[in-house]
Amino acid sequence: MLNVDTLIHARWIAPVEPDNVVHEHHSMAIRDGRIVEILPTASASERYRANETVNLDHHVLIPGFINAHTHAAMSLFRGLADDLPLMDWLNHHIWPAEGKWVGAEFVQDGTALAVAEMLKGGTTCFNDMYFFPDDTARVAAEAGIRASVGLIIIDFPSAWAQTADEYLHKGLKLHDDLRNNDLVTTAFAPHAPYTVADGPLEKIRTLSDELDIPVHMHVHETEHEVEEAMARHSKRPLERLANLDLLTPRLMAVHMTQLLVGEIDSLAQANVNVVHCPESNLKLASGYCPVHELLRKGVNVALGTDGAASNNDLDMLGEMRTAALLAKAVARDATALPAHTALRMATLNGAKALGLDARTGSLAPNKYADMAAVDLSGLGTQPVYDPVSQIVYAAGRNLVTDVWVAGKQLVKNRQLTTLDEAAILKKAQTWRDRIRQ
Amino acid sequence: MLNVDTLIHARWIAPVEPDNVVHEHHSMAIRDGRIVEILPTASASERYRANETVNLDHHVLIPGFINAHTHAAMSLFRGLADDLPLMDWLNHHIWPAEGKWVGAEFVQDGTALAVAEMLKGGTTCFNDMYFFPDDTARVAAEAGIRASVGLIIIDFPSAWAQTADEYLHKGLKLHDDLRNNDLVTTAFAPHAPYTVADGPLEKIRTLSDELDIPVHMHVHETEHEVEEAMARHSKRPLERLANLDLLTPRLMAVHMTQLLVGEIDSLAQANVNVVHCPESNLKLASGYCPVHELLRKGVNVALGTDGAASNNDLDMLGEMRTAALLAKAVARDATALPAHTALRMATLNGAKALGLDARTGSLAPNKYADMAAVDLSGLGTQPVYDPVSQIVYAAGRNLVTDVWVAGKQLVKNRQLTTLDEAAILKKAQTWRDRIRQ
Repeated sequence: MLNVDTLIHARWIAPVEPDNVVHEHHSMAIRDGRIVEILPTASASERYRANETVNLDHHVLIPGFINAHTHAAMSLFRGLADDLPLMDWLNHHIWPAEGKWVGAEFVQDGTALAVAEMLKGGTTCFNDMYFFPDDTARVAAEAGIRASVGLIIIDFPSAWAQTADEYLHKGLKLHDDLRNNDLVTTAFAPHAPYTVADGPLEKIRTLSDELDIPVHMHVHETEHEVEEAMARHSKRPLERLANLDLLTPRLMAVHMTQLLVGEIDSLAQANVNVVHCPESNLKLASGYCPVHELLRKGVNVALGTDGAASNNDLDMLGEMRTAALLAKAVARDATALPAHTALRMATLNGAKALGLDARTGSLAPNKYADMAAVDLSGLGTQPVYDPVSQIVYAAGRNLVTDVWVAGKQLVKNRQLTTLDEAAILKKAQTWRDRIRQ
Repeated sequence: MLNVDTLIHARWIAPVEPDNVVHEHHSMAIRDGRIVEILPTASASERYRANETVNLDHHVLIPGFINAHTHAAMSLFRGLADDLPLMDWLNHHIWPAEGKWVGAEFVQDGTALAVAEMLKGGTTCFNDMYFFPDDTARVAAEAGIRASVGLIIIDFPSAWAQTADEYLHKGLKLHDDLRNNDLVTTAFAPHAPYTVADGPLEKIRTLSDELDIPVHMHVHETEHEVEEAMARHSKRPLERLANLDLLTPRLMAVHMTQLLVGEIDSLAQANVNVVHCPESNLKLASGYCPVHELLRKGVNVALGTDGAASNNDLDMLGEMRTAALLAKAVARDATALPAHTALRMATLNGAKALGLDARTGSLAPNKYADMAAVDLSGLGTQPVYDPVSQIVYAAGRNLVTDVWVAGKQLVKNRQLTTLDEAAILKKAQTWRDRIRQ
């Protein structure tokens, strides 16, 4: 008998690695926050003695979702301005509201709301881009969720920093503060090609190599962005980034709705990661990311919700469904993005993009136990022929009952264990009353 | 003081009629199953004395969803075959499974599962097309949900009928049986242009006029359908239907992903109703229905989930979100389908298509009290700036807490009042075990 901390007996386990596998009546042993083994339930109790045993009789256990692109604190602007195109939405609604309201307290309260929403929906890791990333990091660490906080850089002053240099300086200080943090890591987050000049981008290129930090950036979000770049630089943004030597395996290029065939080839050759945000792209009528073509050429495609101001939720399960459905239509091929591939995009591919796939993203021995249990016993998910199909095409995030990050249970029977939900909701309503006036 | 049966005090009421209105702190008085008045809560208790009072402090009360196209009993095939194109899915999976399993018991158990799922998700009326419609009608009536059952006609034998004439004969008998039923009505349901010959279609045309029955039909679902019709008849299916004089205000043309500009004009002129099923169309890669163009030209566009074998849920709230998001992308215009219009499509437009808009579809005096309460107090729907935006873009169907049809409460604090959920689930699992073998 081997001693472990936790033994989980599940009706199904969908580990994502290896591909297309679903284990039925299997168990997982966890010690020191990491997965020790996945084995048939019949032999698990003979082999392991656990401090704690969890029974998931009607559930499928999956890797926690990795939300590869969000602006967590913007949850306080959820539904503030809808049914508008990107530049109108940004120029006349979001940027003015941010100018007026964003500060450390806003980011703390908005991030807490977002983290609570994400955890309850099965998300165990998020990749953020926003002002006051030190507060984002603090909220994430306190909640116990895994996070990659963006060291934001933008050519406009904000309450967080005045110049590109100050953004960079503050970002590097935060990176240094988080150096030994296993749960909260950092990524450079230059906002977009149209909002960051060559100078800061060159510095980011050098520093990301030296310090081994990913680069998280909105790229080719809209046709307008590409047209404007052609007018200003006589170059498509991707070409400009290529000239700046930024097309590397460290780049997470978010949105990518405007891609020429040759550009897809370049991304594949350079091992650039693409982060697909289908609901935000649909809602802002930004265009379609050619997910099927990217996958076919071997590009790593992860999934993100974008911020709740443009989505309007942080529901990775729903995002995964939208991605799976939309890719088929865009490719004009119902086989284009099968359920298992969609689950992989929402989990392991996000971990890969963040350089965290040795720690998380699939249920494999030695990885951290970052995972979610989804209860399939209800009306909307019965009968069950294939549990993964059920999660991708029929389940809602409300069917997530339990969530663990690094073996610590952060959601237990649908209740948050590290966050005060009532206090978070009260603050959200207070912000609404202030913003609405 | 006026006596009423029920007085509901709601934080918000979104009546759909008039357009774009949300009442805050309003109440609804209900007598004999019908809405008497909607008025400010402050004056409601002075004016009405009620047998029962319901407080919806954190909720928005909306008309119940009208699922304008489904095959309810197919819920037993949910997830049986995914990630396949329409004709492969039909020919090699669904039709063989139907041939083997469909009978009266299958339809009863599958419809009960579907009705339970729909009610809990806020759907108060569904328009069905399937074999054994008499059983569909019986299950709906027992549950108390409003339904339009399809008098199916198809040129292929099934366990329900052998010839087009027998289908028609059995359908007319069912129509006659339901003549005085206010809750369960009928529609002719010729399966599709490619599965029903001119003869039966001509009879349906005559009978639908004589008996005032809508005609519910799959039309222009895929490019393949149109190409095959061109090869067989040298006509696009819509042209053939026009020649058969079937383009009338009674027609509910479902899917309509293949439309020429002139065809949209013809539909508008003839006041044909279109039923949009975005998730099914995406999943089967059937194409995009040009919703924005149809609405712009004044066509009545309703929403349906299609059957759970191709969706894979009967979630009208989710379908409404997908419709709102997708229309923007297809129209390349973020203003193309605003939240309030999406809610109207999911409710009133369905009632209009079914010829039931004098009874249901909006919260207006004299209409039946068919409605759903959605709780917006949770993490994923806070803060609230616009309750309708919140429902369309952020809420999940699990936030539906209470549902009424004709003033009778069928879901109370998330529990079904007329159906035995445990028994329904048990039967679904038994069917799964039989079908899976």
